[in-house]
Amino acid sequence: MTDYFTEEASAEVVNARMGAEVDPRLRQVMHALVSHLHAFIKDVEPTTKEWESAIDFLTRTGQMCSDTRQEFILLSDVLGVSMLVDAINHRRPDGATENTVFGPFHVEGAPERAMGDNISLDGRGETCLFQGRVLDLDGRPVRGAIVDVWSDNAEGFYDVQQPDTQPKWNNRGVFRTGEDGRYWFRGIKPVSYPIPDDGPVGQMLERVERHPWRPAHMHFLVTAEGFEPITTHTFVAGDSYLESDAVFGVKESLIVPFLENEAGDTSWKSEFDFVLKPH
Amino acid sequence: MTDYFTEEASAEVVNARMGAEVDPRLRQVMHALVSHLHAFIKDVEPTTKEWESAIDFLTRTGQMCSDTRQEFILLSDVLGVSMLVDAINHRRPDGATENTVFGPFHVEGAPERAMGDNISLDGRGETCLFQGRVLDLDGRPVRGAIVDVWSDNAEGFYDVQQPDTQPKWNNRGVFRTGEDGRYWFRGIKPVSYPIPDDGPVGQMLERVERHPWRPAHMHFLVTAEGFEPITTHTFVAGDSYLESDAVFGVKESLIVPFLENEAGDTSWKSEFDFVLKPH
Ligand SMILES: [Fe+2]
Ligand SMILES: [Fe+2]
Repeated sequence: MTDYFTEEASAEVVNARMGAEVDPRLRQVMHALVSHLHAFIKDVEPTTKEWESAIDFLTRTGQMCSDTRQEFILLSDVLGVSMLVDAINHRRPDGATENTVFGPFHVEGAPERAMGDNISLDGRGETCLFQGRVLDLDGRPVRGAIVDVWSDNAEGFYDVQQPDTQPKWNNRGVFRTGEDGRYWFRGIKPVSYPIPDDGPVGQMLERVERHPWRPAHMHFLVTAEGFEPITTHTFVAGDSYLESDAVFGVKESLIVPFLENEAGDTSWKSEFDFVLKPH
Repeated sequence: MTDYFTEEASAEVVNARMGAEVDPRLRQVMHALVSHLHAFIKDVEPTTKEWESAIDFLTRTGQMCSDTRQEFILLSDVLGVSMLVDAINHRRPDGATENTVFGPFHVEGAPERAMGDNISLDGRGETCLFQGRVLDLDGRPVRGAIVDVWSDNAEGFYDVQQPDTQPKWNNRGVFRTGEDGRYWFRGIKPVSYPIPDDGPVGQMLERVERHPWRPAHMHFLVTAEGFEPITTHTFVAGDSYLESDAVFGVKESLIVPFLENEAGDTSWKSEFDFVLKPH
């Protein structure tokens, strides 16, 4: 039986074309892609001009990409797809710390530092003490956990975005917990910053009346033998973009009070415990 | 009420972010896009690596695009999306000639020729007489219809793909019907050709065990005052790719016998009537 294209059976006709020996996972993904894509098209019934606009948008998005810019990841971010993929791949039991998006600014190989060290090397911003514990699901301290942290500087830029003006490893560091599972280090209270909005994704945000800002956050990657790694942020409570994070990264459990640190040597302090799920 | 991101409500959270004054059509399209896209992601539950592969594929597809290559249109073509958009925008009553994809090789401004002229200017290929009528839905001849035709040459290339070796306007021409609605011209029996497969789309076709070939076809754009224009092909009956056109362009009603032309001055003849729908 020959199945020529028809509007009604469009997805089925396309999917029937796949070969018999196609990798089963690829087959499943392509089948779902074609089905959902055709359902979308049938739902909106784009005009030829609208289809041309979509082709043009995708083309410009690809052509905006370079060694230092990944516009398709930005697109995935602002459509909530990055968060959804993150959520699907990091489901955890109640009580375990929730994941959020990794983001593009982690750098492998940051220097390991002693507890209490100050990761802010440019001497700018409002000083802050970060502290807390790394625990297992039963509340027992995890010894030898690696706490890898990174944040923007007082101007809202990561060191890798300003290699000429920020010291290397500014606002980055790696800490290793002892017996008590505790971590503590000094840095700055992070500030909110916009994702790059001078490309097609920024134009799209503008047309749907959305801003490009992310609420202030400190990035954490917490790993320990025998446990699932956690990639997450802590968000500065009270930030005005908490409810409208351009990339939908905020989860309620990750919003942390930043308190004035009247007794200490920093202006602020922020406490957060990480609870790891065993492998 | 604050709606932070959750896996369950992911699409709703993203869609709730759109502004109040967004153009209603854009709102509808974006809403459907996000809903279907999240449904697709939830359906296949991509790993982080798979998501990275998808980002990489889209990026390479965009970066393959140039003044002479539109890889995202190829992607739309091989996923059946171009045909679906074409079908949605050109629904016609029974009896009217069916549309198929326009393709990238039409050139505006081809020379108007006299009925019977030969559009094959390179003297290669198997000669063919194309003839038929342009009719309205009641079978009455349409006078003054413009029949704009284009095909590949005997090597499977359109003149614009080989500007250095093919004469300008090779296998192209515009004909105007008289009182009787008839058209007739000489050309070559078209040959099958592959869509460009040296990019990401070609790699994808290979992985899903599909070939890049289109069955042999003559392109027609038929316009007449008071009628809806028809963009279509006639396909050479018996072509081995009819049932597996890489872009799904074939419709049964567009497959035309190419008969040996024993009496005439060409090797083949092919007859097809176009039936136009009034505006
Ligand atoms: Fe960040
Ligand atoms: Fe063609």
